[in-house]
Amino acid sequence: MELIHGGDRAGYRMTYGREPLDFSVNVSPLGLPRGALRAAEEALKRTGQYPDPLCRELRDALAEYHGVSAERIVCGNGASELIDRICRTRRPKEAAVLTPGFAEYERALSAQNCRIAEIPLINGEDFRVSEETVRAIPESCELLFLCNPNNPTGLLAEEGAVRALLERCRETGMLLVADECFLDFTEKPERYSLIPALEHGRNLAVLRAFTKTWAMAGLRLGYVLCGNQKLAEALQDAGQPWPVSSVAQAAGAAALGERDYLPKLRNLITAERTRMIRGLETLGFRVIHGEANFLLFQTEHRDLFHRLAEKGILIRDCGNFPGLGSGWFRVAVRTPEENSRLLQTMGEVL
Amino acid sequence: MELIHGGDRAGYRMTYGREPLDFSVNVSPLGLPRGALRAAEEALKRTGQYPDPLCRELRDALAEYHGVSAERIVCGNGASELIDRICRTRRPKEAAVLTPGFAEYERALSAQNCRIAEIPLINGEDFRVSEETVRAIPESCELLFLCNPNNPTGLLAEEGAVRALLERCRETGMLLVADECFLDFTEKPERYSLIPALEHGRNLAVLRAFTKTWAMAGLRLGYVLCGNQKLAEALQDAGQPWPVSSVAQAAGAAALGERDYLPKLRNLITAERTRMIRGLETLGFRVIHGEANFLLFQTEHRDLFHRLAEKGILIRDCGNFPGLGSGWFRVAVRTPEENSRLLQTMGEVL
Repeated sequence: MELIHGGDRAGYRMTYGREPLDFSVNVSPLGLPRGALRAAEEALKRTGQYPDPLCRELRDALAEYHGVSAERIVCGNGASELIDRICRTRRPKEAAVLTPGFAEYERALSAQNCRIAEIPLINGEDFRVSEETVRAIPESCELLFLCNPNNPTGLLAEEGAVRALLERCRETGMLLVADECFLDFTEKPERYSLIPALEHGRNLAVLRAFTKTWAMAGLRLGYVLCGNQKLAEALQDAGQPWPVSSVAQAAGAAALGERDYLPKLRNLITAERTRMIRGLETLGFRVIHGEANFLLFQTEHRDLFHRLAEKGILIRDCGNFPGLGSGWFRVAVRTPEENSRLLQTMGEVL
Repeated sequence: MELIHGGDRAGYRMTYGREPLDFSVNVSPLGLPRGALRAAEEALKRTGQYPDPLCRELRDALAEYHGVSAERIVCGNGASELIDRICRTRRPKEAAVLTPGFAEYERALSAQNCRIAEIPLINGEDFRVSEETVRAIPESCELLFLCNPNNPTGLLAEEGAVRALLERCRETGMLLVADECFLDFTEKPERYSLIPALEHGRNLAVLRAFTKTWAMAGLRLGYVLCGNQKLAEALQDAGQPWPVSSVAQAAGAAALGERDYLPKLRNLITAERTRMIRGLETLGFRVIHGEANFLLFQTEHRDLFHRLAEKGILIRDCGNFPGLGSGWFRVAVRTPEENSRLLQTMGEVL
């Protein structure tokens, strides 16, 4: 198996013999909220019991949190497992992905022998999703993944583009899967979320994860909110009966009650993102002014990944993203101390 | 989603408003080994980190434990996820399952539109897998699941039947998936395991889980040992990139080091199984003399499930197993106190 994602700490340890400071994955630097950790520890005392296959308590908590009926919510072993289940359930003949974008969409679609229309985002427009992007999607597409904000750019789609997409779904029956896994890191998530559109959006599904926002990458927990109950039922029935561990279910439900966590996280990320954009630009990089908890940049120093790795820092080499290539990198926005260490080390190795 | 398995504690809580004493799932009554619990708690401190997609440390530990090369081991989110991956990877046109048997084989095969040959085990022979069973498998079958010991009977397949199956695999290229998830509960697992046969068994895969033996049902962790590396690679590449949580990986690797746990578990189960067979027969039930940590029995009291549920005890109603039907039930073998409570309560409600 080729490792195409960031966060390969085990591989790093084997090569460099120590733990890296990891900027290659975009996870909340605040760690698991205290209440979620306590709930997870409690759940560890009952590992002999099977998890609830239907995640009923967690889905009830999510239903209240988002104001969406629990019947329309399906939980999975991370958002990536749900991407897989969506593709296996819908089996689209043709689907569209925007490039550069998250590689899992294409992998999961390809596994279903789906024809994939790659819609290239324009370098000169900082790869932003525009109404023109939407017009480029072939009419024959039955499914589209929209990552908003997009990974690896961190940019939100233009509001006109999103309106046009919803219109397209209504007209053609195309399923729009809006991946909002990074939306909580932006400044006004409620303004850009498509969750309110679910009420009148039969052909809409919104993908969310605890992975990033609540620092649960190691626990595996994602969920999808569906515009219609039939889709939710099909997704629930697809695949293994116990996808979500009881530890993840307990931690997730508890996290939603930690109301101070998100504002604190957002303040931290907003302030540090601004500072890092400045810092990276000072180093001479072309920085895409992303709005999430990571930043994409281009530099002539194509060996930056290796230079930093030798200094104990792991960043995401974006050379394997279609539309980018060698010289593009992505770094997470982390704590002030960690970000300062990154910027300082970059200055030293260049 | 219809809940076809045991262990629906959440459903029980909703109906009866309390926690059940659960005999419907067959998990070690000793709970998570101490070292595994400690390792899991440690892993909870690092949930912001992604799990190793390749489970390298865990696979190395398993390789040493079983004496099988790590390249031939694939870990998954419970054995049921691996059953799914095997079916998705092989996409057999026709496959065989033995009935009564674990429902997941048929579910996973059906999801691939596979034609399924149900080979009925004979009631009059206590549903034991014999050479005659093997002869009944159509030549056209490309895959067979053999649960050994079988669930729900707890019986080991006759050794002649296993030899005939291995022969068949060599001759026809049929893939034999030996599900040994309950083998550790039998008295001589090393005598019946097909792991040594992997060395010369290209068309053999052995499925194992931490779920039952190590009481990790809530954590989700299973693995498959493959007779050839190509199969292992295909399974690793199928589906989501991070199937196994870091908590499960850590707990699993630590459990393998707890060398006192299994002998203690086996002694407990052997003694209690004998006592329970006697107890159930005294109640007038027809008991299949299973060799694992659960017992299948038949009674004219078809409402036994409900009578016990009202008394706070959950057992497995086997009415939905093909070949069984109403009046068949399965109970786990648990601690002496719990088993006594079960037998006593059964006596009271009948």
